[in-house]
Amino acid sequence: MKIAIPQLNYRVGDISQNRDAIIAAIQKAKAKRAELVIFPEHAICGAYPGDLFEREYFVNECRLAMEQIAAACTGVAAIVGGPNLDLEDGVLYNSAFFMYDGEVRDGVNKSVLSDYDVMDESRYFIADEDNNALRLGQRKLRVLFDEYESTFIRKEDEIIIHIGVTPFTRENTAYRLNTFADLAQKSGKPVVTLNHVGGNGSLVFNGEALVFNGQGELCHRSKAFQEDFLLVDTRNLRPLPPEERQPGDDIAMIHDALLLGIKDFFKKNGFKRAVLGLSGGIDSAVVAVLATEALGKDNVLGILMPSEFSTDHSVKDALDLARNLGIQSETLPIKEIYDQFLSTLKPIFGDRPFDVAEENLQARTRGILAMAVSNKLGHILLNTSNKSEAAVGYGTLYGDLCGSLAVLGDVFKTDVYRLARHLNREREVIPTNTLTKAPSAELHPGQKDQDSLPDYATLDGILKLYIEDNQSPRQIEAAGFARETVERVVSMVNRNEYKRAQCPPILKVSKKAFGNGRRMPLVAKI
Amino acid sequence: MKIAIPQLNYRVGDISQNRDAIIAAIQKAKAKRAELVIFPEHAICGAYPGDLFEREYFVNECRLAMEQIAAACTGVAAIVGGPNLDLEDGVLYNSAFFMYDGEVRDGVNKSVLSDYDVMDESRYFIADEDNNALRLGQRKLRVLFDEYESTFIRKEDEIIIHIGVTPFTRENTAYRLNTFADLAQKSGKPVVTLNHVGGNGSLVFNGEALVFNGQGELCHRSKAFQEDFLLVDTRNLRPLPPEERQPGDDIAMIHDALLLGIKDFFKKNGFKRAVLGLSGGIDSAVVAVLATEALGKDNVLGILMPSEFSTDHSVKDALDLARNLGIQSETLPIKEIYDQFLSTLKPIFGDRPFDVAEENLQARTRGILAMAVSNKLGHILLNTSNKSEAAVGYGTLYGDLCGSLAVLGDVFKTDVYRLARHLNREREVIPTNTLTKAPSAELHPGQKDQDSLPDYATLDGILKLYIEDNQSPRQIEAAGFARETVERVVSMVNRNEYKRAQCPPILKVSKKAFGNGRRMPLVAKI
Repeated sequence: MKIAIPQLNYRVGDISQNRDAIIAAIQKAKAKRAELVIFPEHAICGAYPGDLFEREYFVNECRLAMEQIAAACTGVAAIVGGPNLDLEDGVLYNSAFFMYDGEVRDGVNKSVLSDYDVMDESRYFIADEDNNALRLGQRKLRVLFDEYESTFIRKEDEIIIHIGVTPFTRENTAYRLNTFADLAQKSGKPVVTLNHVGGNGSLVFNGEALVFNGQGELCHRSKAFQEDFLLVDTRNLRPLPPEERQPGDDIAMIHDALLLGIKDFFKKNGFKRAVLGLSGGIDSAVVAVLATEALGKDNVLGILMPSEFSTDHSVKDALDLARNLGIQSETLPIKEIYDQFLSTLKPIFGDRPFDVAEENLQARTRGILAMAVSNKLGHILLNTSNKSEAAVGYGTLYGDLCGSLAVLGDVFKTDVYRLARHLNREREVIPTNTLTKAPSAELHPGQKDQDSLPDYATLDGILKLYIEDNQSPRQIEAAGFARETVERVVSMVNRNEYKRAQCPPILKVSKKAFGNGRRMPLVAKI
Repeated sequence: MKIAIPQLNYRVGDISQNRDAIIAAIQKAKAKRAELVIFPEHAICGAYPGDLFEREYFVNECRLAMEQIAAACTGVAAIVGGPNLDLEDGVLYNSAFFMYDGEVRDGVNKSVLSDYDVMDESRYFIADEDNNALRLGQRKLRVLFDEYESTFIRKEDEIIIHIGVTPFTRENTAYRLNTFADLAQKSGKPVVTLNHVGGNGSLVFNGEALVFNGQGELCHRSKAFQEDFLLVDTRNLRPLPPEERQPGDDIAMIHDALLLGIKDFFKKNGFKRAVLGLSGGIDSAVVAVLATEALGKDNVLGILMPSEFSTDHSVKDALDLARNLGIQSETLPIKEIYDQFLSTLKPIFGDRPFDVAEENLQARTRGILAMAVSNKLGHILLNTSNKSEAAVGYGTLYGDLCGSLAVLGDVFKTDVYRLARHLNREREVIPTNTLTKAPSAELHPGQKDQDSLPDYATLDGILKLYIEDNQSPRQIEAAGFARETVERVVSMVNRNEYKRAQCPPILKVSKKAFGNGRRMPLVAKI
């Protein structure tokens, strides 16, 4: 059977655009003489529309678009994912519509709903108890949304089509490669699994449709992080060479995910240019490089906002970076504004000693300056905080935590360094000094991150176990970390939920990012 | 049967404190010769622990505490809500533990999981297919978590005990009164329903345990918004006088909910004092009064931050308010800082005309000043934005949207006025001029809210239908609003998701508050 697998960049909520893209892909599949063309879960509505599913008129518009797609579907059969309101019972299913000869002819509803991380399917959908194979002529096609639905597979099924989509995480590519190879091997049937591609807010979909033969060997794999169109003949599934069956290098994948995340955040919101603060440090350097790759050097503005506590090398490193990238930079010193804040605050501050209030004032002066530039020029402010800082609250709300998108908010500091070396793999874009000097917020004289935090290798090790693996402090200790350090880090994480509640949206690249995939109570003793 | 119903202020995640409070209440029930004492859903862990339920060690600690409670439970039987890990299947139930003679003897698991608004039960729990009555001697007790579990009720059940909890909303009191009266009447059995009381982050639980006789008449009702202890004899259930069977006045309830929300936010986080900006407007006035009621006049600091665009009456109204409340106030003019910002930004701003950048600079200078006071003195900044503004994005991120808790973020502007009149019911606390003048952000000369927004009665009418009732623009028009106004308001709401994504936590008082009960995609065409 000749199957077309268009890999499209769907837009959340943009039903007419998705409809038109789907219809165009159906025409292309027909021109290429495919018998069947398949589109993933939520193709008509984008992933994920969230509470738009609670609006009856939204769901009705999806249905109407599905009829229009079906009308264009002659001479080829199509499977298209979208919400399906059962008018009789008034319940909503997460469905695949099966269409040919110009009409919706059949369908399958999801049975095992996903309720974890960023997914809330039970909030919107009813689980169907059954899953019937679709009949295309004499063939039986088994459409699944979730690998846990494999219990529905029957001997007479000719092929298994998994249309469930999941956002990119660094763990997910290997998981999909293994899971669906297993499924193909155990069932002895070809397995096709597809995905969306593109960034939608915090989430990035990596594409990479996979086609396995009945021996569980990977035979086709569409491109990662870009649109693509696979044409597959299931009678002739030959394994790819071994080197093309592996997941990519994790840092390279994270790089590509962040790039697409930035690109689509701008494109889908109608933005063109970005601004960010350049401190001379590693985080802002990495974000500047990614932004330049994503948007072009003429669309990125770096601003240096040195203070009396900034070291000379910070300014030099930032300027070197801007020059290496060919982006415009401006310098806006904060001293006068900071001094004016202190003078205005004198009646309240009196003679109290320098403390976090003054540190935050500097960070916030920078945040406000960056936002002023953003507002005046229409540039979007990119946030440069990393996951280690977000975890322990090493950042100032309304200061360095400002921005429309936190590019590195799901990347631990140790991985930011790996990412930096990856970006420097061909030439020195990020100045060596930025990579080698000790990290510092430069909010008081001689300050270093490691004055108040454990070294980043230790910190990230503990954070990964606590946040991503849900381990208890006792378990983390047992993994080889000092009790005192574990207690301190865990307490910092728990004390700083309030800051994360007001952080910019974070591009998710791990199985557990801060944001709506992690739901911790704000007022809790833990 | 003599039943004790302790109404306690549980703390999220504070298992040992909740355990001790439960044990103390069991002792009290025993002393009062109750046969049964009942505690609601999630009593051991507080509501709601969110992803703490995903940590096995947290769930195990809950279980251990349950055994300790059981050990103290002699001479009386108890029902206590908490998570229950089925070790055999490795699945988690939302359960009621039934204990007597010093041991956990039986239990009931929730069957109809709640997945709407702020609740994500399918994320954590498995639904039990069954619900068996608990046996206390010859009696059969039917324990339900949800009104949709009423299908489990059997003829031989002696009483229905509903232990499901729900956070306060203005709609919920009437709903509970009606729903459980119906259940009692239809089943012909006494119905007891209970609740938590207290504030936990964005959520406030109002208490108000209700006891109905088999005729569906309300016979007992515990206090709203405070701890209480009911002792009920089910053999002698006499109806309350009609005036005690009604829901309270909605503005009075909202007032009490906000008050408890502020009080517990401070108490449970270990905070004592609040700071807020006083603009002379209605929103900050209402928050100042509520904060003073909640924390005491010595614990509230008002700061006036006038600009060149502030009118004389704004300053006077703010000072009058502070004097009426007896709270301390300080004046920090923003002109010098604002001018210094403009001077530093001159290389970028050049001769571009005054626009939203300058407006935001003023609002942000105020936000940063308020945060500086907060950091230096340890006062917590209260946010004073209302729901109408939050809906249409009439506010400045990192400016007037700063703060740790948005007190009025779920109260529409028209209700803020009603709340103000309620607060002024005995004497003029909020100056009359604040109540009668046209609302203004005072960010440019002569500015009024109504220059850029529809009048608030119209705006709030549209917002309620769109946000709280999920109506389509066409339906809202059909309700009598002008098409052009509806389109404009809906577009403002949709364009401003990004601001709400970084707002402070909002005290929820309606069925649909901004925050984690409303999950809209950030990048969407809708």
